[in-house]
Amino acid sequence: MKKHNFSAGPSILNQKVFKESSNAVLELDDIGLSLLEISHRSPEFVAIMNEARELSLKLSGLSSDEYTTLFLQGGASMQFLMIAYNFLKTRGGYINSGTWSTKAIKEAKLFGDVSEYASSKDKNFNYIPKDYSISDNPDYLHITTNNTIFGTQYHKLPDCNCPLFADMSSDIFCRKQDYSKFSLIYAGAQKNLGPAGTTMVIIKESLMNKICREVPSMLNYKVHFEKDSMFNTPPVFAIYTCLLSMRWLKNNGGLAEIEKKNISKSSLLYDEIDNNEMFTGFASKDDRSIMNVTFNLIDEKYKSAFDVLLKEQNISGINGHRSVGGYRASIYNAMEIESIEVLVDTMKKFKKSI
Amino acid sequence: MKKHNFSAGPSILNQKVFKESSNAVLELDDIGLSLLEISHRSPEFVAIMNEARELSLKLSGLSSDEYTTLFLQGGASMQFLMIAYNFLKTRGGYINSGTWSTKAIKEAKLFGDVSEYASSKDKNFNYIPKDYSISDNPDYLHITTNNTIFGTQYHKLPDCNCPLFADMSSDIFCRKQDYSKFSLIYAGAQKNLGPAGTTMVIIKESLMNKICREVPSMLNYKVHFEKDSMFNTPPVFAIYTCLLSMRWLKNNGGLAEIEKKNISKSSLLYDEIDNNEMFTGFASKDDRSIMNVTFNLIDEKYKSAFDVLLKEQNISGINGHRSVGGYRASIYNAMEIESIEVLVDTMKKFKKSI
Repeated sequence: MKKHNFSAGPSILNQKVFKESSNAVLELDDIGLSLLEISHRSPEFVAIMNEARELSLKLSGLSSDEYTTLFLQGGASMQFLMIAYNFLKTRGGYINSGTWSTKAIKEAKLFGDVSEYASSKDKNFNYIPKDYSISDNPDYLHITTNNTIFGTQYHKLPDCNCPLFADMSSDIFCRKQDYSKFSLIYAGAQKNLGPAGTTMVIIKESLMNKICREVPSMLNYKVHFEKDSMFNTPPVFAIYTCLLSMRWLKNNGGLAEIEKKNISKSSLLYDEIDNNEMFTGFASKDDRSIMNVTFNLIDEKYKSAFDVLLKEQNISGINGHRSVGGYRASIYNAMEIESIEVLVDTMKKFKKSI
Repeated sequence: MKKHNFSAGPSILNQKVFKESSNAVLELDDIGLSLLEISHRSPEFVAIMNEARELSLKLSGLSSDEYTTLFLQGGASMQFLMIAYNFLKTRGGYINSGTWSTKAIKEAKLFGDVSEYASSKDKNFNYIPKDYSISDNPDYLHITTNNTIFGTQYHKLPDCNCPLFADMSSDIFCRKQDYSKFSLIYAGAQKNLGPAGTTMVIIKESLMNKICREVPSMLNYKVHFEKDSMFNTPPVFAIYTCLLSMRWLKNNGGLAEIEKKNISKSSLLYDEIDNNEMFTGFASKDDRSIMNVTFNLIDEKYKSAFDVLLKEQNISGINGHRSVGGYRASIYNAMEIESIEVLVDTMKKFKKSI
């Protein structure tokens, strides 16, 4: 019986991606060697790296004359400090929309002044802050476009006159948008891209001239850029699997098609939440995420009964984060609508049973 | 026809490890989910992480009361800067035995004074420096126990009164030794441990109190230690594959047995180099590595002829690094003696053919 894995990350990938990446561990294409044992300087891996970097820009609709892609290590958490280390000269600007924004702000403070222009902490981050002004000329404005824990997502970008940086770990490539509004985008792979172990960074090449202090090599964007994202041995398997996911995305209509699919999936689930009197949505309606759907029972006393039904249907990874409680259905790109239908049916069945 | 892969890293792993790790990408044990899609907080992955950390200490003969193991990201290059960021208070002490030591020294200089007590640069790093004194009370002494590019290896450790730190990326777990002489050991996985994408750090817990400045979270050993090596999402696949390699090592007699095997393998090859008049060894005899065997042709004019024979035998990854030229046979733990025999036979055949 198929498992329906709603994990927030590491999370589901397309079954074809699992198969191809599993095969490559045995033998990459027909070269007689495992993907894991070839040099990262081999023509085979250099081709993988180049294709992954190019395809990321193609999917985003960005020009390779203006942007470059790096596959680094350390997750979004490493980007929190790298951004400030490289680019916080006078003041880093931040919007605080959740746990990960809060962590990004904490790391930035080690490198200089930080202006937090707005926060949704007053309502346990159930909305995206709006109506704020950016008055003190920050070196950059940093936002978290999708808040995995709280299930909120930016549907309109802030206006700012400075470079816009975004943590897109949990919503990269989930929809069409004008990626050229961003100067730097980063995403830990383990949601929409691939396995844990690499972080995709799409960055404007012109930013390389804005690095404002002496930065150790491994933390320096320019060092990685000048070495074509191979300053040292890259995480070969993780990058290859990201490439497989991006190929899958491209072959299925790119961001336009995946956006339609993601809206269908999330609408189906939000409709049930809004129409089923046993549940309430957590996130403010205007700011609902199409990737992470957070909802609570109207009364916690029903939890064990609902959990039994979920288990019967082989639904896993759906418990909410401790700071929100309830449930969180992470419905990333690779999730098929059939799994959402099973969840929605379970919710309906649960209502009837009460 | 079997390929004989002498790559310096990423490099060969045991075939059983490839098979098991490939299977886990399809389905981990019998849980109905891929290793890549389960939460790092799931009981399954927590058990993997715990076993990997414990087994690393068991193999080293170190007590878990005194030492802890972390699986971090960023390779040895990230450790170069983390070591200095955390522990270089007054002066970092370094022995320069090659390219990677040189890089470690470069990164350390960003954080304070560095004393380079000895270097073998005068002879293109073909030996391990000896006979030096450590006079100025460094915060630590850093060595590179095996120099992948030059094929040299420490067979006697330096005497010092300060904590001894070692980059063991290319010789971790290749031999029995008294690991308790070290306060910090690190190794990029992609030679003796697993795929590229994680770095094993074995560190004395008492060092956590010696962190000498405010260090960003992701670069702070204490942060990772306090979170049981799961401060943020770890590189799940790479760590699991390291565990498989360590299990394989343990099930085959641990470090005592692998040392015997590695000595047999390297002796066979060094004997041929010393007895075959077409070749000369690169590294000083006393300091020869049992992991990376570097040798040159007596005359470069023979290169294309020898390369043809190597290719016929399906020998790959054996070209020397550009700074040494000639050949480098990397014969890590997972390499079987049969591959060395094929290489030695090819060298004999080559001599006859001239």
